Amino acid sequence: MPVTSRADAEALDRADPLARHRDDFLLPDGVIYLDGNSLGPLTRAARERVERALRHEWGEGLIRSWNSAGWIDLPRTVAAKIAPLIGARAEDVRVTDSTSVNLFKVLSAALGKQAGRRVILSEPGNFPTDLYIASGVGAMHGAELVLAEDVTAALTDDVAVLMVTEVDYRTGRRHDMAAVTAAAHAAGALTVWDLAHSAGAFPVDLTGADADFAVGCGYKYLNGGPGAPAFVWVAPPHQEAVQPLSGWFGHAAPFAFEPVFRPAPGMDRFLTGTAPVLSMSALDAALDTFAGVDLAVVREKSVALGELMIERVEARCGGALALASPREAARRGSQASFRHPNGYAIMQALIAAGVIGDFRAPDILRFGFTPLYTRFADVYDAVEILAGIVKAGSWDRPEFHRRAAVT
Amino acid sequence: MPVTSRADAEALDRADPLARHRDDFLLPDGVIYLDGNSLGPLTRAARERVERALRHEWGEGLIRSWNSAGWIDLPRTVAAKIAPLIGARAEDVRVTDSTSVNLFKVLSAALGKQAGRRVILSEPGNFPTDLYIASGVGAMHGAELVLAEDVTAALTDDVAVLMVTEVDYRTGRRHDMAAVTAAAHAAGALTVWDLAHSAGAFPVDLTGADADFAVGCGYKYLNGGPGAPAFVWVAPPHQEAVQPLSGWFGHAAPFAFEPVFRPAPGMDRFLTGTAPVLSMSALDAALDTFAGVDLAVVREKSVALGELMIERVEARCGGALALASPREAARRGSQASFRHPNGYAIMQALIAAGVIGDFRAPDILRFGFTPLYTRFADVYDAVEILAGIVKAGSWDRPEFHRRAAVT
Repeated sequence: MPVTSRADAEALDRADPLARHRDDFLLPDGVIYLDGNSLGPLTRAARERVERALRHEWGEGLIRSWNSAGWIDLPRTVAAKIAPLIGARAEDVRVTDSTSVNLFKVLSAALGKQAGRRVILSEPGNFPTDLYIASGVGAMHGAELVLAEDVTAALTDDVAVLMVTEVDYRTGRRHDMAAVTAAAHAAGALTVWDLAHSAGAFPVDLTGADADFAVGCGYKYLNGGPGAPAFVWVAPPHQEAVQPLSGWFGHAAPFAFEPVFRPAPGMDRFLTGTAPVLSMSALDAALDTFAGVDLAVVREKSVALGELMIERVEARCGGALALASPREAARRGSQASFRHPNGYAIMQALIAAGVIGDFRAPDILRFGFTPLYTRFADVYDAVEILAGIVKAGSWDRPEFHRRAAVT
Repeated sequence: MPVTSRADAEALDRADPLARHRDDFLLPDGVIYLDGNSLGPLTRAARERVERALRHEWGEGLIRSWNSAGWIDLPRTVAAKIAPLIGARAEDVRVTDSTSVNLFKVLSAALGKQAGRRVILSEPGNFPTDLYIASGVGAMHGAELVLAEDVTAALTDDVAVLMVTEVDYRTGRRHDMAAVTAAAHAAGALTVWDLAHSAGAFPVDLTGADADFAVGCGYKYLNGGPGAPAFVWVAPPHQEAVQPLSGWFGHAAPFAFEPVFRPAPGMDRFLTGTAPVLSMSALDAALDTFAGVDLAVVREKSVALGELMIERVEARCGGALALASPREAARRGSQASFRHPNGYAIMQALIAAGVIGDFRAPDILRFGFTPLYTRFADVYDAVEILAGIVKAGSWDRPEFHRRAAVT
């Protein structure tokens, strides 16, 4: 049934089985937030937890909290909450460092296992830091970064590693993880998946896809807070690989203070230095928001929100905005993107009007859907405001030509 | 004038020009905290700042706070507050990642500049993560980690990099940074200094010592909170070196999303991924506690506290505890360490009695002095309690044989 009025959208919200989760989030008044794919919002749980970590654990417990408050175990306890969201066992995931640093670790490990093959294959549209890190790792290993629009067609027998982001950060195009992994394996390549725009947005099944390595972001759909630590997953057969960021938390006995590095068994060897506890605590608590949530239901609502956005933009913006995302819902992540030559100024006007999405050069307006708090009425209202801006040409004013917002 | 009574210690506190700073710290009641060299305590400034970052910047500002709250600049703004503590220019310091990860960057950069030389020289007593990281970097560069008790005597012409921690984490032994650097340079080696137990504890002069690279910890004497991000300093002539952790924050134009890595000019190329903002904010605010503080005065009081501790332990513990630190104050950092075969159990008893120091295997009791909040009376009282435990042999009970506290 098409939504042709706000009342229709409200009816969908009333029937939404996820509606009660919205109260877990502390969203500011007067804002429609369609940028949870860039920075997830504050949850009640994270606010309470960080304040406790600050005042009680650090302030009162001091050094004793490494044990008494479980700080020392955070890379494992937080990982155990991410594992079910990505089709992984808890023991194969760790939360540590940034996505970029974790990519360095897994690319190094993968290249180390692929002696004789010296190509890292990726896409030109992959998120830039992935490409930058790959070129840095590649230079250390004598490997070359090769980019191809169609990576499965480019899987020649010199490809050591295929590194792809499941969901394109600009268009939302989603890869078929199982099919791409199978193609890579058939060509003798290992896969490194970046789940930045996947984890928490829809069900991911690393185990079912037979993937090799994965990294992902804590501050987008996982709502871990600005710059939250990232996660790293390694399939069990690869966990004995060497990763060169061999710090004390990756040692078999970190507090024995032995002079020679002995890697920890299993995933702990992918840890390096001391974890930023306040930021880890925010992520840890935010993940509790997913407890009892069925990601299949999240995905269903995400698709419905995306379909509504596309329908309403096409109905209300008179062809001014071109869909940049795949039209087929199964090929999209949890976002919808549109192109407009004045996209930057339009997004600035939209933000000023209380609808927060983001802009990606050169011409993409990007809107993320986070079904635990995004309502159908929010999408309806956002498109009404967007249509008003586009029709009025009101974005074409110098005050909107400010510095770009960043993510 | 020797201190022979608590009244003598109190008199020193009354005359202490730093006494007023103690109120900046939120220390728990009933605790004498001599472990600021492991984890600095919570400051009022950090508590307020993190709560603001949480509720206002993240909660209300959401993605907009990357610009409006200055998150994007934190690696530089926090660094600018550390620079004067270490004898550096603000533009040559960045706050990012962990000490271990930053060591990886600077060791890679240093080895890259020293083609033909393939030894990383260090000490067997260096902090283990430094040695572990050096072995990981070394393996990638075909370089070997060589350990020597007397590093200046071991500076052969194959040494690419001399990597030392200025203050030994167990004994507090302090190197003469200028002299060791000069010896390294005379042998054609570059220096990498770890300032973990130096920054914030006494004046450090990287520029005056003509050092090459340095890293340091945010959560010890800088009071940045558990796992606070670390800092990295590179002398200007070396800033163009290649560091392989080439993430988007190290790009010349991070938000242009270019597919090819173009390193930022200057120190920004030593950045990698997104900074953990909550943890960065705590460190940023904690550093304000140093505003207007003369580190020469801090050092003077630190030496006096150390001398008092050694005098009182020798007077009150009847030779049971052997000094593990250099006796000469100029050769010590801001700590005093003692050996006892039952050191672990004694430290557990001491912590149970409200005096928090720490234990380092196999037999070292370690006490750190942080002149902005440590009082002479605290040291006096701590030794009285310690003497009581040692004399009564009350540490020799099974309940003290618990799991070791960690740092």
